[in-house]
Amino acid sequence: MKLLHVFEAALGYKFSRPELLRQALTHRSFGTPHNERLEFLGDSILNCVIAGALFLRFSELKEGDLSRVRASLVRQETLAEIALTLHLGDYLCLGDGEMKSSGFRRPSTLADALEAVFAAIYLDAGFDAVRGVIEQLYQPFIAHIDPAHSGKDPKTTLQELLQARRLPVPRYELLATHGEAHAQEFEVECIIAALGIRRVGMGNSRRIAEQQAANLALSEIK
Amino acid sequence: MKLLHVFEAALGYKFSRPELLRQALTHRSFGTPHNERLEFLGDSILNCVIAGALFLRFSELKEGDLSRVRASLVRQETLAEIALTLHLGDYLCLGDGEMKSSGFRRPSTLADALEAVFAAIYLDAGFDAVRGVIEQLYQPFIAHIDPAHSGKDPKTTLQELLQARRLPVPRYELLATHGEAHAQEFEVECIIAALGIRRVGMGNSRRIAEQQAANLALSEIK
Repeated sequence: MKLLHVFEAALGYKFSRPELLRQALTHRSFGTPHNERLEFLGDSILNCVIAGALFLRFSELKEGDLSRVRASLVRQETLAEIALTLHLGDYLCLGDGEMKSSGFRRPSTLADALEAVFAAIYLDAGFDAVRGVIEQLYQPFIAHIDPAHSGKDPKTTLQELLQARRLPVPRYELLATHGEAHAQEFEVECIIAALGIRRVGMGNSRRIAEQQAANLALSEIK
Repeated sequence: MKLLHVFEAALGYKFSRPELLRQALTHRSFGTPHNERLEFLGDSILNCVIAGALFLRFSELKEGDLSRVRASLVRQETLAEIALTLHLGDYLCLGDGEMKSSGFRRPSTLADALEAVFAAIYLDAGFDAVRGVIEQLYQPFIAHIDPAHSGKDPKTTLQELLQARRLPVPRYELLATHGEAHAQEFEVECIIAALGIRRVGMGNSRRIAEQQAANLALSEIK
């Protein structure tokens, strides 16, 4: 495990009680005390801080839209992305089995540990300290929020975009399914006839394949 | 509307910006600015404060149990109960239609407004101020938590209680259904043969009737 002060520098916070940080970075597979209780607390702190930041920044957004935008920020993918920029995986304490299966690269493990780190900061120095850290880490994400679309799935975004241009909604066609029943892969084409766009998405469910196809079509339009 | 300083005294908090409190107590039916955005923020503040309080108080509880106990504290029923002790309904600004339909007594309206009040305190004076208020209001509820059972539904609690005494699980029997398809009422009997207990519950679904019957049987055993 690398020296924790390097991680603290990346995080922009120095612990008075470094044992809290160590616990936050300890996966259950390594032993106790591990980070699962801290993750519970950190999750609620993150939700609260992001709610407050969005409330102040987007004064015109209704509660339903605030909720949607927040969901896009606190989800596992975003947390794991931030954890990667902090090289959090290099500091994780994992059991042997988890190490062998590259648990330090698993998005859920990284996201959980980052939430636990937030709780550790809260316990170390209070709410305003952790709010400062979270707002700093999330700044690039919050800056790029498009309140009308963030957190909407690609199919919804695509449909709204076409409707705004008074074009017909896209058509989705199942092209093929591969594999056995328990591990099928679906191939779906998203067709926007009015724009001459056809994009194929793949996924383990028809829904996922449609979303991927919609996402590719969206990139094409934008 | 009564004088807000009476409400502030009950709440144990005096606002620097009373307009925040007024907004928190304004239902959408009355006009803008109303309390819906504040409710979004207040909900996440409440979740965070309760998570922190439970984390510190129940150091032996696992994250799943913390989550279950928290759910029992932040749910509408608990919030509405607290709102009633504060006579919050007397201070609500409601539109005419809501007034006529006694909206000031509706649990969801009371719960939403109380969450909005929490957000107003947060915006007025920061996290530690609102944490103090919430911890004070929730103190009686937190003091009476039974970590093994709080937040579990009556059927689960009853089953666990019987299993702990090495008794067979209860039997639930549908006695009757009344009314038309869209507004049926169910009558279910909970039978604990080993203890000679039979209790009948009613409800708009079979599940609700079973839970009520289990609850009555629980009271009998305790």
